[in-house]
Parts: sequence; C-alpha cells; structure tokens
Amino acid sequence: MPQYNAYLIDLDGTIYHGSQPIPAAKRLIERLNQAQIPYLFVTNNSTKKPQEVADNLSQNHQIPTTVDQVYTSAMATADYVKNQPNSTKKIYLIGEAGLEFAFQDAGIDLVPAEEANFVVMGLDRDFNYQKLQAATFAIQKGAQFIATNADTNLPSEKGMLPGAGSLVAALVTATGVQPTIIAKPEAPIMEGALAKLNHPTKPVMVGDNYNTDILAGIQNGLATLLVYTGVSKPDQVALEEFQPSHTINNFDEWSVTD
Amino acid sequence: MPQYNAYLIDLDGTIYHGSQPIPAAKRLIERLNQAQIPYLFVTNNSTKKPQEVADNLSQNHQIPTTVDQVYTSAMATADYVKNQPNSTKKIYLIGEAGLEFAFQDAGIDLVPAEEANFVVMGLDRDFNYQKLQAATFAIQKGAQFIATNADTNLPSEKGMLPGAGSLVAALVTATGVQPTIIAKPEAPIMEGALAKLNHPTKPVMVGDNYNTDILAGIQNGLATLLVYTGVSKPDQVALEEFQPSHTINNFDEWSVTD
Repeated sequence: MPQYNAYLIDLDGTIYHGSQPIPAAKRLIERLNQAQIPYLFVTNNSTKKPQEVADNLSQNHQIPTTVDQVYTSAMATADYVKNQPNSTKKIYLIGEAGLEFAFQDAGIDLVPAEEANFVVMGLDRDFNYQKLQAATFAIQKGAQFIATNADTNLPSEKGMLPGAGSLVAALVTATGVQPTIIAKPEAPIMEGALAKLNHPTKPVMVGDNYNTDILAGIQNGLATLLVYTGVSKPDQVALEEFQPSHTINNFDEWSVTD
Repeated sequence: MPQYNAYLIDLDGTIYHGSQPIPAAKRLIERLNQAQIPYLFVTNNSTKKPQEVADNLSQNHQIPTTVDQVYTSAMATADYVKNQPNSTKKIYLIGEAGLEFAFQDAGIDLVPAEEANFVVMGLDRDFNYQKLQAATFAIQKGAQFIATNADTNLPSEKGMLPGAGSLVAALVTATGVQPTIIAKPEAPIMEGALAKLNHPTKPVMVGDNYNTDILAGIQNGLATLLVYTGVSKPDQVALEEFQPSHTINNFDEWSVTD
C-alpha cells in the first residue's frame, strides 16, 4: 500500500536543471510508473504549450511523458477563468504562446483591451508600454485582473531575467489593484491539478522550492516532499514555521511503495 | 520686506490644469515679477525639455518664462549624477526626450546597458521587455539605480496612464534593488532647485499636492504653501501629522510682499 496515491511534481530544479537531467528524478518516475501511481508535472511556467513540456521531458530527459501528465500555470489560468461565474468571458491577454494556446484550447475568446472583462498577465517577452497602458485602462474600467504567477525572475543562461511578477508589479502600481494569482504557492493551480488527477485521497506535492512548491502543498492541505536538488537549502528551510512533511537530498532516498 | 525671498513652484494643478490656465496663478507670477522675487518652476515631469516647458507657459498660459526658470526632474537627475563621486559616469537610460536632453546638456555619456555604471529610469512610452532585461542585468552587475520619479500615474485625456513609478516597480521587482528617487518629495530635486536659486535664505515651496510638493518642502526644511486648486483636498490634509505652513484656496488670497 503506497503512502501517497498521487504525485504533483515540479519540474525545474526537481526533475531537471534547465537542459541538465537529474538522473535520480528519472528513476523516481520509473518507480511511480512501475507502482502505477498517477502523477502530474505542475509548473509555474506559462510560456510553453503542454506538448512542448511533454516533448522536452520525453526527448531531452528520457522521461516518456504525455500531454495529460503536464499542468502549466497557463492551463490553470484558463481553467480558473472557465470556472468564473461571468456569463461572458472576454480576455485581454499579455503573455506568450503557452498562455494563448491554453485559452484557445479552452474555447475562451481573446479580445482587444477595450472589450475585455478579464485582463490576464503572464511572462511576455514582447511586453511594452502600450500593452501596460491598455491593461491599465481595462482594469480601471472594471476588468478582473488575473496573473499566471508572481515569480520575480526566471533563470537563463544570460542571468536572472525579469519574470512575470515584475511585469505584474508594473500593472499593480499603475492600477492600485492586486491580481488573483494562479500559480504555486497560490490555490488555483493546486485546485486545477487535483481536479485533473480526479481528486486523489492521498496526494503529495513534490518540489525543490520551499516558497512555491512546498508552500503550495502546505497552504492547500497536501502532504509535501522537499528535495534538495534546487533552490531551497536545509539551513533556510529549518527557519520556516511550517515544515515540509518529508525532506530528502535526492529521489534515490525515496520509496514510493511504503 | 517679503516673507519669502524665493519661490519654488509646481506646475500641473498649481499653475494650470493640463491645457487649462488657472488665472489666479498668472496673477501670482505677475506679483512676483513686480516685487522682483525670484522663482523657479519645479516639476516631476521628466519627458519634456525645459525649453518646451517654458514655451508652453509663455505661449499657452501667457506667463512669459525663460528656460532658466524651469527645473524638471530630468535636469535634477542629470545634476544628481554629475555630483556623484564616480570618476566615470556612463548612463543606461530608459526615458524620453527630456531626460536624454538633460544628460546631453550635462555632458554625460549615454551608453548601452552592458557598459553602464548607472541605470536611470523615467517615464518611457517606448518601454519594453528588452529594456527591462538590459537594465536588470546592469543593476545585477552593480550599476547604481536612479529613478527620476515614482509617480504611479499621469493624467491624460484618455485616463490615468501608467507613470514612471509603474515602470520602476517592474525593475525593483526584477532586481530586488530600490532606486534613488530624484523627484518631489525626495531631496535631490529640492537640493538642485535651491542650488539653481543660489541657496536663498527664505524659500517657500508652492504646490497643490500634499504628497509631492508639500512633503518635499517639509522634508527638506522649506516653508510650504498649499493651494487647493489641484490634487489635495482640505479634509485629507487635515489628517496629516505635518501641516503646510500656509493653505489657500487660490493665489488671489496670497500676498507676496508681506
């Protein structure tokens, strides 16, 4: 009898480091498959389509992955909007292909800012003042403000790039309105991920980042497994008031069946 | 013997409302000229050249103004950088013509972000992600971060546009670094304005906005004159711990000679 019957698993820092595989992570996924325990990769990235995320895992990390095993903050954002009570949903989108695809896939209309009743913002490397201004006016006129995530930066080979959170800060400052944030550690992405796994009875949230992955689990009532292969370090985590359910140095220390 | 021997005077909301003149303001300036009391228009706007500000006053508001009577946050920013101890000053600039002109006028080099030891940010309606990224990298590598002003919005006929402060918020979030802010209510613009007036013994700061003009005066040891023709309202100002030296409904209530 496995301790947990569904795994929600972060990607960067947990399953790989950028283009670099983490071999013990591949072995964890193999044990989950062998034990027939369902899992879902849950990522704050909103710029990639789920097929791209699955292909990257299958082809570059030798972890065969289907599109159904991927849940991005873009997908969670589209699901969140879909579940809002508004009878019409017209989105002004600031974001990249992954976010655009998620709304198209959900059958939700993307419109110019003047017609929108939702402003959705993710990382957009084509962001500019005109988009900021259009979104500011729409929110001033009452559109609901939703952000895929509040990550301040994202790592790149050139250095720490400005993340979605830094674009969100501009729009928060211009409007005085705080957005609903979808991604880890917030609730919407966790609710969407658990729904996609058919509301498992004993799920565990797995990741390397205390402030996103582990807090997402703790704040949403899931067990948590922190792996020290990425962002968080034991001495920092020791200072936190709420501790992860489990901490390991790498996945070879973790058995899925007991 | 006049009560104050130099006037620092805000523009929008104080001398005019956008393109709309405030007749009592024109009469105040006439009385100052008659009494030979020097004055300087001190504005947080960084996008316009001083000549444009002077021309607008002369031509559209019938207040004859020379370029020497104008001090913008762009000029204050260039003066501030000029007075820094660094032996070389290379600026990566995010801003518009007024700011660019101020640095050229001060003989300070504008360079690509990779070569900069200062990042200077003002309102830039050509702002985009590439500029944000370039500035983020420069600050991460140690460039000093300076912002002309932190105004969250600026009024326009279309609505409240995102101000310099909203672009600054993006860069603060991406870098974790707080900028030196030049404009009212901060010290640098007041120090620059007082220097330009040759350090008058009894200056007064005049404006319509408690949070910028009046706080600028209070925090920098000047007398203050709040005129209720713009942003601030008496019932809000009554709640402030530090009160203006004087409050008036319009400039016809104010004598410059006693």
